[in-house]
Amino acid sequence: MARTAGSHSDITGPRVRDAALRLFARDGYAAVSMRRIAGEVGVQAGALYNYTPDKQTLLFDLMRDHLIELLAAQPQDTGDAVAALERFVRFHIGFHHDRPDAVFIAYMELRNLEPENFAAIEALRRQYEDRLETILRRGAETGVFAVPDPKIATLAVIAMLTGVNTWFRAGGRLRLDEVQDIYWDMVRRSVGGTVAQ
Amino acid sequence: MARTAGSHSDITGPRVRDAALRLFARDGYAAVSMRRIAGEVGVQAGALYNYTPDKQTLLFDLMRDHLIELLAAQPQDTGDAVAALERFVRFHIGFHHDRPDAVFIAYMELRNLEPENFAAIEALRRQYEDRLETILRRGAETGVFAVPDPKIATLAVIAMLTGVNTWFRAGGRLRLDEVQDIYWDMVRRSVGGTVAQ
Repeated sequence: MARTAGSHSDITGPRVRDAALRLFARDGYAAVSMRRIAGEVGVQAGALYNYTPDKQTLLFDLMRDHLIELLAAQPQDTGDAVAALERFVRFHIGFHHDRPDAVFIAYMELRNLEPENFAAIEALRRQYEDRLETILRRGAETGVFAVPDPKIATLAVIAMLTGVNTWFRAGGRLRLDEVQDIYWDMVRRSVGGTVAQ
Repeated sequence: MARTAGSHSDITGPRVRDAALRLFARDGYAAVSMRRIAGEVGVQAGALYNYTPDKQTLLFDLMRDHLIELLAAQPQDTGDAVAALERFVRFHIGFHHDRPDAVFIAYMELRNLEPENFAAIEALRRQYEDRLETILRRGAETGVFAVPDPKIATLAVIAMLTGVNTWFRAGGRLRLDEVQDIYWDMVRRSVGGTVAQ
């Protein structure tokens, strides 16, 4: 019985998540009912509860998994700080470009998380920010960056990079790798990094 | 009769707008009904229609007025490009800090604007961006900035600055003017501006 329910969830799960992500991004969490998500997937509302206990858990899981995936996909922070920062910049733009709905929800639906869930999401987000802050601190210590406040610089750089999602469209004036070049140049200079030799 | 309706609107208008702004920011446009806005204001739903023909118009008016106010409040772009950029940076952070709900809605509810309204809002937003782009181009021409792509640099700087709203809280580690100093330093360097003498 547990096995059957498990198999059922394995199949329905990804479709539920895809539908929820799309509907939350389009209409907002508060406006989307479990019934509507079920309708989008093509199952009865009751079948959704094999997969998730409630809508709040569904939202939390989407946001948590997005951040866990982000942390796992991020390149190792090795080598000198300038090279590590360049990898961070290029990775951040590429990863977020591929997931516009998840990025939109990560920002927009924080307000709809219950306090415990909010704290868990913020902790994961801080883990990600800490990695950039570590790079900036290392660069400041070795004298390749000039960063008076690494915590604020971290938030400023992440906001700048995530902003690409609000305007970049494939097929436009610039390719994504050209955008990555331009942002890397601006980020490097913003933290006082010298021009690569 | 028209006069009475006018007087009525004059009083109710600001309260309707405040309530709509607060509710849209908290729960999202799609989840908030006109009846709920009326309830928040303490009037019958019908009374709202003295003020606005429908919810879409209410959203559009909020977003349009925010941008018109932004354009009107912005300091004149005179003098050299470095000074103009500094004024832009400090103004942008201060103006947006004072209006968190309007800023949140400006980003989040674009998806809920009807095409004609979306085009009008985008045109106003572009006017604002154009002012920064003009400063960056002038600085590049006079050699005080190094900006390979002024359009992209404009979007990058605006995203960085607006990001302050996602984390800054009065009473925290830094005062807003300290944050403005740090961001001005980062923005100046990101566009290749030299240190002020």
